[in-house]
Amino acid sequence: MKSLKELFDRITQRVNINLRELKFDVNPFVKDLVPFHQLVKFYAFYGITPHHPLDFQFRHSNLAGSYFLGKCCTTNSILYKSDIRGDELKKKGDTCEFQGFKIPVSRDEAIRIEDSFLIKTLVHNFSHDPETLENFFIRNTVSTHYANIHGSPTDGSYLGPFATVDLTTMNDCVIGAFSYVQAGEISHLHIEPGTVWVRSPNNFNFLYRYPLNKLSHYIHFTAGAPPQGLLIDFVEDRKEAFQRVFETMNIDPSVTIPNNASLDRFAVIKPKTHISDNVLVAQRAFLQNSWMGKGANAQENCYIINSRLEGFNVTAHGAKIIEADLGQNVFVGFNSFLRGRPDCRLSIGKESIIMPHTIIDVKEPLSIPPGHLVWGLVTSPADLENNSIELKELTKISEGFSRGNMFFEGNGSSFVTAFRDRIHHILEANGALYDGVKNKGHAQKNQNISFNTIQPYPEGDLKGLYPTIIIRP
Amino acid sequence: MKSLKELFDRITQRVNINLRELKFDVNPFVKDLVPFHQLVKFYAFYGITPHHPLDFQFRHSNLAGSYFLGKCCTTNSILYKSDIRGDELKKKGDTCEFQGFKIPVSRDEAIRIEDSFLIKTLVHNFSHDPETLENFFIRNTVSTHYANIHGSPTDGSYLGPFATVDLTTMNDCVIGAFSYVQAGEISHLHIEPGTVWVRSPNNFNFLYRYPLNKLSHYIHFTAGAPPQGLLIDFVEDRKEAFQRVFETMNIDPSVTIPNNASLDRFAVIKPKTHISDNVLVAQRAFLQNSWMGKGANAQENCYIINSRLEGFNVTAHGAKIIEADLGQNVFVGFNSFLRGRPDCRLSIGKESIIMPHTIIDVKEPLSIPPGHLVWGLVTSPADLENNSIELKELTKISEGFSRGNMFFEGNGSSFVTAFRDRIHHILEANGALYDGVKNKGHAQKNQNISFNTIQPYPEGDLKGLYPTIIIRP
Repeated sequence: MKSLKELFDRITQRVNINLRELKFDVNPFVKDLVPFHQLVKFYAFYGITPHHPLDFQFRHSNLAGSYFLGKCCTTNSILYKSDIRGDELKKKGDTCEFQGFKIPVSRDEAIRIEDSFLIKTLVHNFSHDPETLENFFIRNTVSTHYANIHGSPTDGSYLGPFATVDLTTMNDCVIGAFSYVQAGEISHLHIEPGTVWVRSPNNFNFLYRYPLNKLSHYIHFTAGAPPQGLLIDFVEDRKEAFQRVFETMNIDPSVTIPNNASLDRFAVIKPKTHISDNVLVAQRAFLQNSWMGKGANAQENCYIINSRLEGFNVTAHGAKIIEADLGQNVFVGFNSFLRGRPDCRLSIGKESIIMPHTIIDVKEPLSIPPGHLVWGLVTSPADLENNSIELKELTKISEGFSRGNMFFEGNGSSFVTAFRDRIHHILEANGALYDGVKNKGHAQKNQNISFNTIQPYPEGDLKGLYPTIIIRP
Repeated sequence: MKSLKELFDRITQRVNINLRELKFDVNPFVKDLVPFHQLVKFYAFYGITPHHPLDFQFRHSNLAGSYFLGKCCTTNSILYKSDIRGDELKKKGDTCEFQGFKIPVSRDEAIRIEDSFLIKTLVHNFSHDPETLENFFIRNTVSTHYANIHGSPTDGSYLGPFATVDLTTMNDCVIGAFSYVQAGEISHLHIEPGTVWVRSPNNFNFLYRYPLNKLSHYIHFTAGAPPQGLLIDFVEDRKEAFQRVFETMNIDPSVTIPNNASLDRFAVIKPKTHISDNVLVAQRAFLQNSWMGKGANAQENCYIINSRLEGFNVTAHGAKIIEADLGQNVFVGFNSFLRGRPDCRLSIGKESIIMPHTIIDVKEPLSIPPGHLVWGLVTSPADLENNSIELKELTKISEGFSRGNMFFEGNGSSFVTAFRDRIHHILEANGALYDGVKNKGHAQKNQNISFNTIQPYPEGDLKGLYPTIIIRP
C-alpha cells in the first residue's frame, strides 16, 4: 500500500498549504480516520444510461464505495464511500442566466476531483458559480463523514462531519461540523461548528448558531478521534441493512413501484413502505414502514422511518425523518434530524420549510403549523417559538429581525422566493412534476441504470489504488 | 438495440466474405442462436492483479459474461459468456525459440478480437505462431458453444460447438462440431465434425474421425436449431449452480484450500471436495465430491464429479470427469467426456494421455492401464483396444500405423515427446510445480484478483452495446 500512503500524504500536505493562513492542520483530524485496509474493501461503481453522457476518468486514486453517474474526472484522490453522482451537469449549448448575464455553456460540464480526500461525502451537483460553468471542481479538499459538497466548486478547504457547502464557491475555508453554508463566494473563512448561514449578497443574510454544548450530543468531532454523537450512532446502527444490498449483483425490489417512480437498487426498503407516483428513492436511502406520497423523494443518505409524507416532499441529502407526519410540499433540508416518538409523533403542516441542518427531537408531541420556516435545535414547543416564523410573516420583513440564536438581515420576501424557487427546481429535477410527457426528472431517467463495479489493485505497492480507467460513449 | 443488430449483421457479413470460397454461410447457424435480449442480461468482468499488466480496450462491442485477465482489445465484437483470460501473454523482452530462430518479443503481446462473434467460447492464450508474437488476434470469426480458440491467432473462420483450434494459425476455415485441430498453419479448409487432427509438419500426423451416427448422440448441430446432444444437456443441467456464484459480489470459499492453491471465486464447489497443494480451479469449473491431488487442475468449463485425481493431473478446458479414478500425471485433453457410473467406475492408470476430444462412456467397469494414449469414442473394453496404444509402443513407431478409425503417420517418439513437453508446460504454467520459491504459476498468481464488472447500455439504440472502456495501469 506504499502508493496509497504516499497519496494520502500528498493530499493532506496540499490541503494544509492551502489552509496555512488559517493555521489549520488537517492531519490530526484525518490521520487514522479510515484505516488504509478499509480503502481496499469496497467496490466503487458507475452507472451507464442513455440519459447521462458518459465520460469517466479515474487516475491514481482510491475510490472505495463511490458512485459516479455523470461525467467525472478523479485524479490523485481518496474517495471513501463518497456518493458523487453528477446527473445535473450542464450541457454544451445550455445557457445560464446570472444577474442579467446570459452565459452560454461552451462544453459539457464535468466534475473534477483532484488531490482530494472525501470520506463518506456526498457531492451530487447543480453548480451555480457563473465563473466555472463547465467545471465542477473540488481540488485540494478534505471532507469528512456525511458532509455535502453540493452544487459547489470548492478548493483548498476542509469540511467537518455533516457539514454542507451549498451553492457556494469556496477557497481555503474551514467548515465546522454540522455547519451549513450557502453564501455565494467565500474564501479564507473559518466557520465554527453548528453554523447555519444563508446569504445572498445585497438581498438577505440568515445566520443561526447551535449552542455547542447541546450540538455535541448529536455530533462532535475533535482531532484524534472519529466523529461521535447520536447522528453517528443512528447511522452506524443501520449500516448492516446495506450490506445485503451491496453484496448482491441484481436485486429485485421488495415493494411494487409505479412505472413513473424510481427506487435505486442500492437503497434499503424495509417492510410496509409505500411508493407513489413520481417518487424518487436514491441510492443509500433507507425507508422503513413509511408512506411516500406522490412526488416525494428520499435523497442519498436519507432515513425515513415510521413516517408519512403526503406528497411533493423534498427530503434532502442526509435528512432523517422518524415517527413524523409531513403535509404536502413540506421541505426538509440537508442533514436535518427530525425525530418524533411512537407515543408523541411529530407533525409538520403543509408548505412548511425545515431549514437545512435543523434538529427537531421531541419527547412530547409537536405540531408545526402549515407554512412555517423552522431552523436550529427544537426539542420542545418553547424551542419552536424561538426557532420558527410563519412564512407569510417573513415575507413582510424588509430590514431584519432576530429570534433566539438566529439573526436575519435584509429582505424576507426574496429569502422566501429564493427558497421556493429552489424547492421547485429540486422537485422538477427529481421528476416529481412528471405528467407522463413533460418534466421528466431523475425519478424517470434513473430507473434503468447499468451499474459497473470497479476495484483497486488487491496487493503489492499499488494495493488500494485503482488503475487508470477511462469510460467514453 | 438497433446498434447491436447492426453489429451482428456486420460480423456475419464479414465472416461470410471470408468463407465465400468454401461456400459456407454462417447466418443460418448463428441467427437466433442467442436472442438479443440475452446479450443484455449478463455482466462481463475483468481482473486486476499486480501480476498481469493492465491494458483493456473495449469498443463498440457486446461482452456479456466474458472474463478478461490479460491485455485485450475488443472492437466490433459480440462475446457471449466467452472466457477470454489472457494470463500467458508474452512480454516485451521475452525471446521465443522456433525452429532455430530466436525471436525477441518487441512489445507486450495483446489479444485483439475484432468483428467476431464468440458464443460461450473460451479463448485463453499461449500463442505459438512465430509470425505474430505480439498479436493474438481473432478477427472476423464466428465461434459457437464451448468451442476453444486456444493459443491460436484465427481469422475469417467458423467453429462449431465444442470445436477446438489449438496451436494453430487459421485463415478462412470451417471447423465442424467437436473437432480438434492442432496443425500448424491452415487455411481454406473445411474440417468435418468429429475430426481429431494433430499434425506437426515433417514430424507426425495423427487423424481420427468420429463415426458421425454415434457422435450425434453426444453433440450435433444443424442450421436453424441450437446445438443438441448429451454434452449440451449435461452442461445445461448444471447451469443453475453457477447462478449464485455470479449473483453475489464476494463469495467465501466453501472448502479450505492450501495457501499455494487457487480456487476461483467464479467456480462452483459442491460438498466433499478436497483441494491439495498447488491445485488450480479456474473460473466456471464445477467440482463435486472429488479429490484433487497435489498439482491437479480443473480448467475453465471443466466438470469433475465423484472422482479422484491423484495429482499433477491436467483437466484441460471443457473436459468432464465423472465417477472416475485417475492416477498421477494423467492428462485429460480439451472437451473430453469421461463418464464412469457409480456401479462401474472408470479408472485410468498413471501417466496416461487422454487425447483432446475423447469420449469414454462406459456401462461396465473400465480400467485403462498406465502409460497409454487413448483417443476417440470408447464405450467398452473392445473399443479401448481400437482406440489406444501403449506410449512405449508408440515411441517405437517410425513410419506410421492405423488402428480403428485412427491413422498415424511419422515419428511416434516425437509425437510422445511433443505431448509430454506440452503437458509439462501446462503443469508449470498452472503452478503445479511450485516449490514455495520457484515455478509460481496461475495457482499462486491468480489467488488475489480484483474483479470488476461491466455492463452495457440498458436501453435506447445502444442497448446491449458496451461503452468504450479503457483500463491502463
